[in-house]
Amino acid sequence: MEDTKEKNFVAINYISCKDHYRERFEELFATRAGAIDVMPGFKYMEVLRPMEEGDNYLIVSHWDSEDNFKTWTKSAEFIKGHIRGFEDIKIAKQKGEEPPMTSSFKTYEVISR
Amino acid sequence: MEDTKEKNFVAINYISCKDHYRERFEELFATRAGAIDVMPGFKYMEVLRPMEEGDNYLIVSHWDSEDNFKTWTKSAEFIKGHIRGFEDIKIAKQKGEEPPMTSSFKTYEVISR
Repeated sequence: MEDTKEKNFVAINYISCKDHYRERFEELFATRAGAIDVMPGFKYMEVLRPMEEGDNYLIVSHWDSEDNFKTWTKSAEFIKGHIRGFEDIKIAKQKGEEPPMTSSFKTYEVISR
Repeated sequence: MEDTKEKNFVAINYISCKDHYRERFEELFATRAGAIDVMPGFKYMEVLRPMEEGDNYLIVSHWDSEDNFKTWTKSAEFIKGHIRGFEDIKIAKQKGEEPPMTSSFKTYEVISR
């Protein structure tokens, strides 16, 4: 097994996205502000589009540590990075509609390569 | 958006692992044969251990294309790379036990970084 110090932390945001919102959702990432990129311990992220319709999108972010990730989720950069998506959800709510997307974080440790 | 040619393919094997099998499961990857590494179009893989008990392990493999991935799943290297795990499942079955792990592939395209 690898040295514990070499292990890395991964957070995956599982996004369930309504069909009508997919294009907008992808545009948000294609034009993202890069707010996360300046966070301490952030390494890189990838946005995964499911090949199977109905499966979740995955936003996979790699960090030096879980603490770095947690700090980001409580930061001003987190709000800044999500502001357009949050606004879309708010507007849907005001119209009495279901949210165009819902999300759920799960966290992982890289144990092997 | 990025050029289509720069997009990459990702396969994730979601593994539901019985508690008693977790140590063995992790050992299989820590001592893996590297059978996948020689496949055309294979880029790299990561094994993600869930921080939350009960969540799935994720085996994330990156490929140049979906075709490269599909070729691997039908190859002798696929059998070679999974032979110890397959054997563990076979033994459990012979004992009339539930399989120590179950797995399910989902596939994705990297659309943004």
